[in-house]
Amino acid sequence: EDQMRQRAVEPSDPYSSDPQRHPVLRVNSRKPFNAEPPPELLGDSYITPSALFFTRNHLPVPRVDPASYRLRVEGLPRPLSLSLQELKSRFPKHTVTATLQCAGNRRSEMSAVRRVKGLDWGVAAIGNATWSGALLRDVLLAAGGGGPDAAARHARHVQFEGLDSDAAGTAYGASIPLRKALSEDGDVLLAYEMNGEDLPADHGYPLRVVAPGTVGARSVKWLGRVVVSGQESASHWQQSDYKGFSPATDWDTVDFRSAPAIQELPVQSAITQPADGAVLERGEATVRGYAWSGGGREVVRVDVSLDGGETWRVARLRGGEEEEEEEEEEGEGEAPPPPPGRAWAWKLWEVVAPLPPGVQEVEIVCKAVDDSYNTQPDSVAPIWNLRGVLSNAWHRVRVKVKGD
Amino acid sequence: EDQMRQRAVEPSDPYSSDPQRHPVLRVNSRKPFNAEPPPELLGDSYITPSALFFTRNHLPVPRVDPASYRLRVEGLPRPLSLSLQELKSRFPKHTVTATLQCAGNRRSEMSAVRRVKGLDWGVAAIGNATWSGALLRDVLLAAGGGGPDAAARHARHVQFEGLDSDAAGTAYGASIPLRKALSEDGDVLLAYEMNGEDLPADHGYPLRVVAPGTVGARSVKWLGRVVVSGQESASHWQQSDYKGFSPATDWDTVDFRSAPAIQELPVQSAITQPADGAVLERGEATVRGYAWSGGGREVVRVDVSLDGGETWRVARLRGGEEEEEEEEEEGEGEAPPPPPGRAWAWKLWEVVAPLPPGVQEVEIVCKAVDDSYNTQPDSVAPIWNLRGVLSNAWHRVRVKVKGD
Ligand SMILES: [Mo]
Ligand SMILES: [Mo]
Repeated sequence: EDQMRQRAVEPSDPYSSDPQRHPVLRVNSRKPFNAEPPPELLGDSYITPSALFFTRNHLPVPRVDPASYRLRVEGLPRPLSLSLQELKSRFPKHTVTATLQCAGNRRSEMSAVRRVKGLDWGVAAIGNATWSGALLRDVLLAAGGGGPDAAARHARHVQFEGLDSDAAGTAYGASIPLRKALSEDGDVLLAYEMNGEDLPADHGYPLRVVAPGTVGARSVKWLGRVVVSGQESASHWQQSDYKGFSPATDWDTVDFRSAPAIQELPVQSAITQPADGAVLERGEATVRGYAWSGGGREVVRVDVSLDGGETWRVARLRGGEEEEEEEEEEGEGEAPPPPPGRAWAWKLWEVVAPLPPGVQEVEIVCKAVDDSYNTQPDSVAPIWNLRGVLSNAWHRVRVKVKGD
Repeated sequence: EDQMRQRAVEPSDPYSSDPQRHPVLRVNSRKPFNAEPPPELLGDSYITPSALFFTRNHLPVPRVDPASYRLRVEGLPRPLSLSLQELKSRFPKHTVTATLQCAGNRRSEMSAVRRVKGLDWGVAAIGNATWSGALLRDVLLAAGGGGPDAAARHARHVQFEGLDSDAAGTAYGASIPLRKALSEDGDVLLAYEMNGEDLPADHGYPLRVVAPGTVGARSVKWLGRVVVSGQESASHWQQSDYKGFSPATDWDTVDFRSAPAIQELPVQSAITQPADGAVLERGEATVRGYAWSGGGREVVRVDVSLDGGETWRVARLRGGEEEEEEEEEEGEGEAPPPPPGRAWAWKLWEVVAPLPPGVQEVEIVCKAVDDSYNTQPDSVAPIWNLRGVLSNAWHRVRVKVKGD
């Protein structure tokens, strides 16, 4: 209601047609809109409800008319211009459960070490949803991709251009490697559904990219154009942002050409419950969280410590099995593991364990291991970087224990 | 000469036909033979000379007659029995520069934390060589792999069996995912050459697997049999060894079925110069080392600290460019980067920097970052595991600085 009024009084505001949002979201920036859910809610459900899914907008939300919408596919022998209906009818519908994570998730822990440039995300700029759409691979093949044509042979990247743009008309853009897009195991979608419904306006209606295993920034929303090219996207976000640097690099010395654009993300985990600063009863504590890794690598173990990292116990992992069992009523034991190299979805995890006796305060820590046996680094300062991205050190939460 | 005499006097010793070895190698075990080169030599050349390449034998070196040798390929519609000559003539020769690393490389740092079971490797159970042979993919396709046949459709793994065996006749064995073996980007070799010559006896003559990006234990030497199967190798080394566990897991509680067999290795780096305990002149220090990551992920940065990890500088990376330039005489600038996802070879790196003034002792530290932006963990204890594998914490070397 408030928002309706705001729209009415500021018709020239490019954000005036932004959609309504769920009031429980923690807003990091209103224009553009950037927000994340409370961690406890996030860790509560394997599939993140769309209304709670973190929103990372770079620009105003464009209003797209689905009837006149066209996706242009260029840079290949047979350029395409596809209506939404054609996308849905000409290409098989493919469904993937995939986690998307913002490059800046957990940035607030980096800014606590030293100032960084960026939105102050907590641990919830990540979410897991079921996405449906056409496979980008199928669309590129229909346009003549992967063939012996000269353009196709020199192509290395797939550029995406959004329909969101700034006052000067510059659109959001990004690219992924063509290898990922054409791979039979890549599962890159041109998605028109999120969790079984049309994409919400904040998540790219009517069409977005979902590049599983890849940093969220490449899953371009409100997708207008796909260009196969020898070059990466020329956009600011591909060239001069979303890259990792040494803690020794500052804004005076940074050379953005010296680092590769982030594509696959490193292994990650965080505690969603209890909250930092919570007061727990003496006795058993329940600790919950999520764990995920990029590149389709499966999380194979999460270690949790209730004494700041001195001793560890192994958490119980949850994939999507329980949801499926609940639906089927008949539990068939564990769901099959994801195909190798295609573990796109996170795992939730839980530890129930006694708090160390006699202490007033406890530091709870988690760290995950993926199937390449990569692990998270112990501390934040050595991975600090000027943009505050790739913040994946052990997650630490301090809680107080009620006196007896 | 000593070895010749030993052979003569102990004819029943299964190790009596083991080959001669380079005297500079540091021997961790003689029977079976396990040895690594001095780190300074390792870090000196991009291509590790075959005589210096670490040797990790599980059993006596078998003597294989190349004339009667046959490779059997089973589990597919058209089983094969291939002579060495057929392997060389029927399949294109493919050459790959690839780093192999033992799962136990740097184990001595883990055993310094707490006792582990395994050979006490330093930082040199890793090497980089040029391997030539037939592509495993080509051989599997010739046997009907990848087809619509039922066996092929249910196949998930490629098992390898060595011609080395123990007193009871049990052969060394291991397996890799079929997906890796059949991938056009997998580059798995049935190699008959190392650095341009026939394989040395210690490295698998006449034929071995080279599975780039994968733990060394899967690159089975003295290869006798390849079996495509729905199951992993049933060998001890696949089922009950070469797996990673939590630091909380001990020999009383370990369940080897609970962890996946190591395949891709995590990001790694180590200092090869100066040596721990070295005494350096005041002024500039030269620090050198290697960095590598599994799964074809390219190392994109190495950070080096001369103050125990407080401050960092970015090392200069060296791929194979310099060797090539030396050969070509005409430097054409940098060699092209490896194709994405196929960075099988390590990078050597170097930092030349002033030692902190006024100190008597310096802790030098290195850590690498790969193109998935995975990093090495800070410390050893939290990744300690009962088998002492996957030891990839920051590498630390303490040196003394000469008083002025
Ligand atoms: Mo992001
Ligand atoms: Mo090994």
